Amino acid sequence: MSQATRCQLVTPRARSDIKKPITEINMVPMSLIQPAVRSYIVYSSILALKVLGMSVLTGIVRHKKKVFANEEDAKPTRGVVKYDDPDVERVRRAHLNDLENIPAFWLLGALYLTTEPSAALATLLFRVYAAGRIAHTLVYAVKPLPQPARGIAYGIPYLINLFMGVKIVFHYISAL
Amino acid sequence: MSQATRCQLVTPRARSDIKKPITEINMVPMSLIQPAVRSYIVYSSILALKVLGMSVLTGIVRHKKKVFANEEDAKPTRGVVKYDDPDVERVRRAHLNDLENIPAFWLLGALYLTTEPSAALATLLFRVYAAGRIAHTLVYAVKPLPQPARGIAYGIPYLINLFMGVKIVFHYISAL
Amino acid sequence: MSQATRCQLVTPRARSDIKKPITEINMVPMSLIQPAVRSYIVYSSILALKVLGMSVLTGIVRHKKKVFANEEDAKPTRGVVKYDDPDVERVRRAHLNDLENIPAFWLLGALYLTTEPSAALATLLFRVYAAGRIAHTLVYAVKPLPQPARGIAYGIPYLINLFMGVKIVFHYISAL
Repeated sequence: MSQATRCQLVTPRARSDIKKPITEINMVPMSLIQPAVRSYIVYSSILALKVLGMSVLTGIVRHKKKVFANEEDAKPTRGVVKYDDPDVERVRRAHLNDLENIPAFWLLGALYLTTEPSAALATLLFRVYAAGRIAHTLVYAVKPLPQPARGIAYGIPYLINLFMGVKIVFHYISAL
Repeated sequence: MSQATRCQLVTPRARSDIKKPITEINMVPMSLIQPAVRSYIVYSSILALKVLGMSVLTGIVRHKKKVFANEEDAKPTRGVVKYDDPDVERVRRAHLNDLENIPAFWLLGALYLTTEPSAALATLLFRVYAAGRIAHTLVYAVKPLPQPARGIAYGIPYLINLFMGVKIVFHYISAL
Repeated sequence: MSQATRCQLVTPRARSDIKKPITEINMVPMSLIQPAVRSYIVYSSILALKVLGMSVLTGIVRHKKKVFANEEDAKPTRGVVKYDDPDVERVRRAHLNDLENIPAFWLLGALYLTTEPSAALATLLFRVYAAGRIAHTLVYAVKPLPQPARGIAYGIPYLINLFMGVKIVFHYISAL
């Protein structure tokens, strides 16, 4: 694979550079013009907006069903304080599931870029990850579908996170 | 706006650089002396300390009311295991609300710096975000106030996250 | 302490550089060959894999006890929908505790590297943090032990996060 299709990072030119004082090493910073880096940035941000959207979705369901978590929220609309409304709880579980998976992607995606992946593979993984997580929200919280819809939408991004995590750990295993 | 007031990043000098081998591109690394970068670092860290503080706050309320989540925690103080104490649950909701919003800020704030924002605006957004989230904790969990106190303290940081997210996505839209 | 044992970053060579146009400053990018940076990468990724593992652990306990959170999950195995199974809830609390602490580490660890810590100290902190959080999961969710086992496994990583956060804030205090 040619140099142009791999993610360049702040790496020394040669192994022998490791012993040189750091100021003498010729380094190449990870560039924002690189497709894989730009891909990470755009899909990470889309996922952040998606996570933020869950709060709006929870708010919509809460107001539709007049079910709230705090006295001061229930009062103005004469709603009730309740913690077991199935529709509200379903959206909240989808939201929590995001928190269990997406911040891990933000970290692993960024660090994966430092392992010199092929740009085509990295871009593909980020794209599929984002699509999978959006599909997960749709089949879990927006329009609940029978399994294995949610299992697939959950599993594919999960495996991508796992793959990137294992790749990073092996790449930096000497730093353990 | 002059160059000095915008966040410089590892960007090529000219569009024509994109086709050059990466080692020949003249790049400018994002610098830790830039005010907007330093602002991001300090406010992100303050928010991390704030999130960590929620655990202490939960612990204080749990011990005051002798209400715990685990048998092994309740035993030494002769407390009870209970999951519906209103004061404990209020602090826990504030904590969860942090987890739904602050990690997204950590990501979006950092990526927003790569979109060449004005340093003054970026610094203002980070400062208001942090102040809003601290106010949110105060009016939600420390001294509950009637609405719209919490709504405002929640909404302003939320809109800042949204603004940064949309700005980043449009900036990198070609990487979709 | 010699330069080689401290984390070098994109810092200007001299204070007087601050007023120079940014393109003229001689900068040194944070390098992936530095031990502390590599240590951060490997331990952050291990912790991300650990967080992802909590979902598998929850799934195992759910299937063993046939207790699920959604109708569509309970149906295929003739399980029940239940939200108060003590074993499932214990794993879920351990998982949530991860979300309250580990993303803060991902942020603080990275920013801590920009405060020119000694490489030996930074590496030690990352290593102990990761070990502590893994021990926390073991004594909380895998094989519950009486206190203070969990308190210690929780407290040491917590103090490391706190130390790094305070160090960062003081280092960048002028950016407030």
